[in-house]
Amino acid sequence: MKPIILIHGGAGPNSDFIRNNIEAYKCGLRDALATAYRILESNGSALDAVEAAVRNLEDNPLFNSGRGSALTEEGRVEMCASIMDGNSKESGAVAIVTGVRHPISLARKILHEKNTAYLGAHGAEKFAERVGIELKPDEWFISHYQKEVFDKNIREQKEASGHGTVGAVAVDMFGNIAAATSTGGLDFCRSGRIADSSMIGVGCYADNKTCAVSCTGDGELIMKTVLGHSIVSEVKYTGLSLSICADHIIHGDNEELEGDLGAIVINASGDYAFSFNTERMHRGIQREGFMEVYIYQKENTNE
Amino acid sequence: MKPIILIHGGAGPNSDFIRNNIEAYKCGLRDALATAYRILESNGSALDAVEAAVRNLEDNPLFNSGRGSALTEEGRVEMCASIMDGNSKESGAVAIVTGVRHPISLARKILHEKNTAYLGAHGAEKFAERVGIELKPDEWFISHYQKEVFDKNIREQKEASGHGTVGAVAVDMFGNIAAATSTGGLDFCRSGRIADSSMIGVGCYADNKTCAVSCTGDGELIMKTVLGHSIVSEVKYTGLSLSICADHIIHGDNEELEGDLGAIVINASGDYAFSFNTERMHRGIQREGFMEVYIYQKENTNE
Repeated sequence: MKPIILIHGGAGPNSDFIRNNIEAYKCGLRDALATAYRILESNGSALDAVEAAVRNLEDNPLFNSGRGSALTEEGRVEMCASIMDGNSKESGAVAIVTGVRHPISLARKILHEKNTAYLGAHGAEKFAERVGIELKPDEWFISHYQKEVFDKNIREQKEASGHGTVGAVAVDMFGNIAAATSTGGLDFCRSGRIADSSMIGVGCYADNKTCAVSCTGDGELIMKTVLGHSIVSEVKYTGLSLSICADHIIHGDNEELEGDLGAIVINASGDYAFSFNTERMHRGIQREGFMEVYIYQKENTNE
Repeated sequence: MKPIILIHGGAGPNSDFIRNNIEAYKCGLRDALATAYRILESNGSALDAVEAAVRNLEDNPLFNSGRGSALTEEGRVEMCASIMDGNSKESGAVAIVTGVRHPISLARKILHEKNTAYLGAHGAEKFAERVGIELKPDEWFISHYQKEVFDKNIREQKEASGHGTVGAVAVDMFGNIAAATSTGGLDFCRSGRIADSSMIGVGCYADNKTCAVSCTGDGELIMKTVLGHSIVSEVKYTGLSLSICADHIIHGDNEELEGDLGAIVINASGDYAFSFNTERMHRGIQREGFMEVYIYQKENTNE
């Protein structure tokens, strides 16, 4: 099996900030792909690769996860992440954690725990300290851009809005697949808001028998549609291609969906798809002899 | 449409405690059914009915939710709950909340919020205070039985184990369906553990077009199988009866599942099913002229 990695850096409307930073975004996507692909090339697992890709994006302040996370209405960073192994179907997830440099690696540590697959808030942070996960002071997470957005929201008394996520799916040399998703949540959201990105089955899912999915978009709509598992089920029951299945669900399979949705999908045979109903989804792919990153629609990604 | 309410009080192995309290359990189930059915009979909504049934069970110290919740390894009560309206597909959920008498009603308050469907820990508690949800001191939640279990776990240095959930699904006179699930979690579990019961799509789901489901069993297995949405998808794609679909998934649809699973399911036509792979699932049903409650297997519930 030839390994493949797909990543995304969130789907949504265009913005001046994105327009002004296209090259920086593409550079970040390429860096994350290269980091993860090196692992896959050296016989590494899909699970290690998706974790590495997401760690890289979490450290990049351009993306809304880890460093560069959106700020809550209290001006704090609260992060959510999840990871799933398509071979064992074991998963790990964390919600509303603060001070953890790599929420995705904390989720990964939980993956092998018995009787715990999902930890939140104080309990997750306590577990992080116990297993020696890297911690950072609160101010480390706050990017210049997110601070500006927050100050503007305060000035203009805005509602919570905007969103952003990072994620990865991969297939490795052994034909195993995995998925990972991480987010800093919604700009100016209520403190304690738990994102779909931390919900196994919703923002992240992987099963070698069907496919691995990482989702992005409006969190509440992703929950309502159970986006991850809806794509998995469409694949399971219809046997149609990943691309057709993901588009069916994301563009409204016989029902009107109001809101932003996006997903990256891969299966154990190396088929894959990018699907989104928004102006742009930051995304990229690397496989043997090929690496490409994209931001807007109409850039052909399912060649 | 003739209204129907189904409830469960958790699926799992038998125990001396259960054997010694069969009549008390059945009495509690009947009381919850009657409370919810009165609402349905007076043209109330399925959403109001499932909330009322779960509120009743949350107040009953025999069931692991609200008062009577399991204690974490730190001896505290941390509760999770979710509720979904099959008509609007709006949902509300709360995770690891303390001091809230009725987590299901806090989830219900969140259901109508914009940009928030799922709140955890401190943020959920702050929201509870703001919207005037009833709070109780920590000791109010701790039943004599759960304190005994905790003391035994401390003495015997046990691992986290046992589980328990309550839930309800209903169809109302208008043909709308709803689902609700609430839990006190796992005995002696890690602090901060988030239960499947609070995960929309996983422990709870409702869509008028397919069915409403409330799940119980081993939380980590429920996440792995995305139990709620797996049953919904089986119904959507196969068109088979709720009973066949739920049994397919719970008894292992072509894969071996090690662990306890149970679910109650209803659709907008008034078809319903109880399904579980355990020795017992506390459960009951009320519809026009008929009310019955059951605990063990081989009590015919799909008459």
